[in-house]
Amino acid sequence: MMINGREGRALWFEKGKIKFIDQRKLPYKLEYYTAETVDDCCFAIMDMVVRGAPAIGAAAVYGMVLGVNDLEKTAYKLKKTRPTAYDLFYAVDYMLDNIKNCKNPLDAANAYVEDIVDKCHKIGLNGEILIKNNMKILTHCNAGALATVDWGTALAPFYVAHRKGKKFFVFADETRPRCQGLLTDWELEQEGIPHVVIADNAAGFFMKNGEIDMVITGADRITANGDFANKIGTYEKAVLAYENDIPFYVAAPVSTFDKNIKSGDEIIIEERGREELAVINNYKIMPDYTKVRNPAFDITNHKYVTGYITEKGVFEKPCF
Amino acid sequence: MMINGREGRALWFEKGKIKFIDQRKLPYKLEYYTAETVDDCCFAIMDMVVRGAPAIGAAAVYGMVLGVNDLEKTAYKLKKTRPTAYDLFYAVDYMLDNIKNCKNPLDAANAYVEDIVDKCHKIGLNGEILIKNNMKILTHCNAGALATVDWGTALAPFYVAHRKGKKFFVFADETRPRCQGLLTDWELEQEGIPHVVIADNAAGFFMKNGEIDMVITGADRITANGDFANKIGTYEKAVLAYENDIPFYVAAPVSTFDKNIKSGDEIIIEERGREELAVINNYKIMPDYTKVRNPAFDITNHKYVTGYITEKGVFEKPCF
Repeated sequence: MMINGREGRALWFEKGKIKFIDQRKLPYKLEYYTAETVDDCCFAIMDMVVRGAPAIGAAAVYGMVLGVNDLEKTAYKLKKTRPTAYDLFYAVDYMLDNIKNCKNPLDAANAYVEDIVDKCHKIGLNGEILIKNNMKILTHCNAGALATVDWGTALAPFYVAHRKGKKFFVFADETRPRCQGLLTDWELEQEGIPHVVIADNAAGFFMKNGEIDMVITGADRITANGDFANKIGTYEKAVLAYENDIPFYVAAPVSTFDKNIKSGDEIIIEERGREELAVINNYKIMPDYTKVRNPAFDITNHKYVTGYITEKGVFEKPCF
Repeated sequence: MMINGREGRALWFEKGKIKFIDQRKLPYKLEYYTAETVDDCCFAIMDMVVRGAPAIGAAAVYGMVLGVNDLEKTAYKLKKTRPTAYDLFYAVDYMLDNIKNCKNPLDAANAYVEDIVDKCHKIGLNGEILIKNNMKILTHCNAGALATVDWGTALAPFYVAHRKGKKFFVFADETRPRCQGLLTDWELEQEGIPHVVIADNAAGFFMKNGEIDMVITGADRITANGDFANKIGTYEKAVLAYENDIPFYVAAPVSTFDKNIKSGDEIIIEERGREELAVINNYKIMPDYTKVRNPAFDITNHKYVTGYITEKGVFEKPCF
């Protein structure tokens, strides 16, 4: 990913510490957060210093390195930080297996992270084929490099297509409550890809008016039948794309597919605090009396999905 | 409408001036805006001191009173303030007709406004029948008393049902970009009706989870075939309600029906400035580099509408 004109990453391990781009501060400020302990790392995941299922997985493997002296407790703490991200559980178990098999913890963690980056690049290569010149493409939330260490999932095809010289235009949903669309905006701006941010309410308008040719989102968890959990609002955009005959693709590494879960009905949805909706960048936008409900994710039925863009190819159904 | 425990109105005429609740300041502060001239009144409409098609109509009739010395110029100025609100054109033409027929301008304007309030109350009486005990009802934007001088359109059934002692729960969409859901929140809070505000992205989630039994919105313009223009995002919620077999009602006075327009395809949609999306209550939530597109309204096809709640009754199709 480009950061002020140089290649960079959303997080990395350096001198016994985890360094994160502090995504709570973006897009307003580019600041870094350093995790020196497991608790710091758990805080980074819970408070969304780091976000996006693959990046959370990367944080978790490095968290296991920090907590290598008490693996059971570290694994327990990390696993309870966020309930929806399957990558988190996968990453912790990966580290437990590797350490049990006497692998060097940092080598194992680095291999996991390089593997994520490589998979995201391949998602980009596979998804790029779907992007034709002059297309207008909608994305929701931020499934970019920030969410996956580098390249992203939903945004990876954009980066590959752009670097190949293809011309296209991106609509980025603002993605209330946390406005992660502004992270997508920041990434696309850094990369020089033409785009606008729109209110989540406007996505349907642009679809109906023929201004959107394709939708690509990420996924936090994909079940055996292809239903998937992703940022709240994804379900709305998928239904609207379906209603308007617009192809809807989900981009995710194969590790996001959870074969143990039959369908979306089995996924528990996390409801988060009112502050996410009521406060933006420390500024109160809602009065104190305002009550909210704030589900963080929703489930989209597989019937709305045209295809799954993975590192192994683009598939109409989960087939792993 | 209740304002701090007393009955009040969104706007009224007093001693040669128009007084408005300044809706740009709500819900943060309850302040009033005074229009002494036609230009003040045009500013109030354009800058959304007053908003909602019927309230804009009420502002326009009083604007015609202020500009009675040059009716042609006043009519021209008022009509060009907002392109989508049919009530605005209707109100200006009503005043031109009445003044041509030698009616006293202020009497004519007051009669128009009382007629709006009476119609809204009747919309409430007709719509209230649809509300059953323990229902959960979604509304979008603010089609309340603030938008119609008193009672509201979409909210009028809530007020009548609440005052009759019915128990129900309201989900209010935040309604980005301008967050008019917070005006609905303010009104419902004043009235003591149980409710929460949700992100626009969450409406689909609650519908899919069986937590919403009915949707009621207002309309800015309804065409001969029943298609209607309303606040951006209404189309999304209508499609989602349809997909989830949830009744979707549009509440509006008969004056909102524009028989001269065959279908929604003929309505021109206003795109507004980036500040609406980028700034909330004078606080910048988006960086300066962020580009946006900001359509203010969308068109919902009549096929998604269960019925139209009007002062003349509830109808499956426009039939006036």
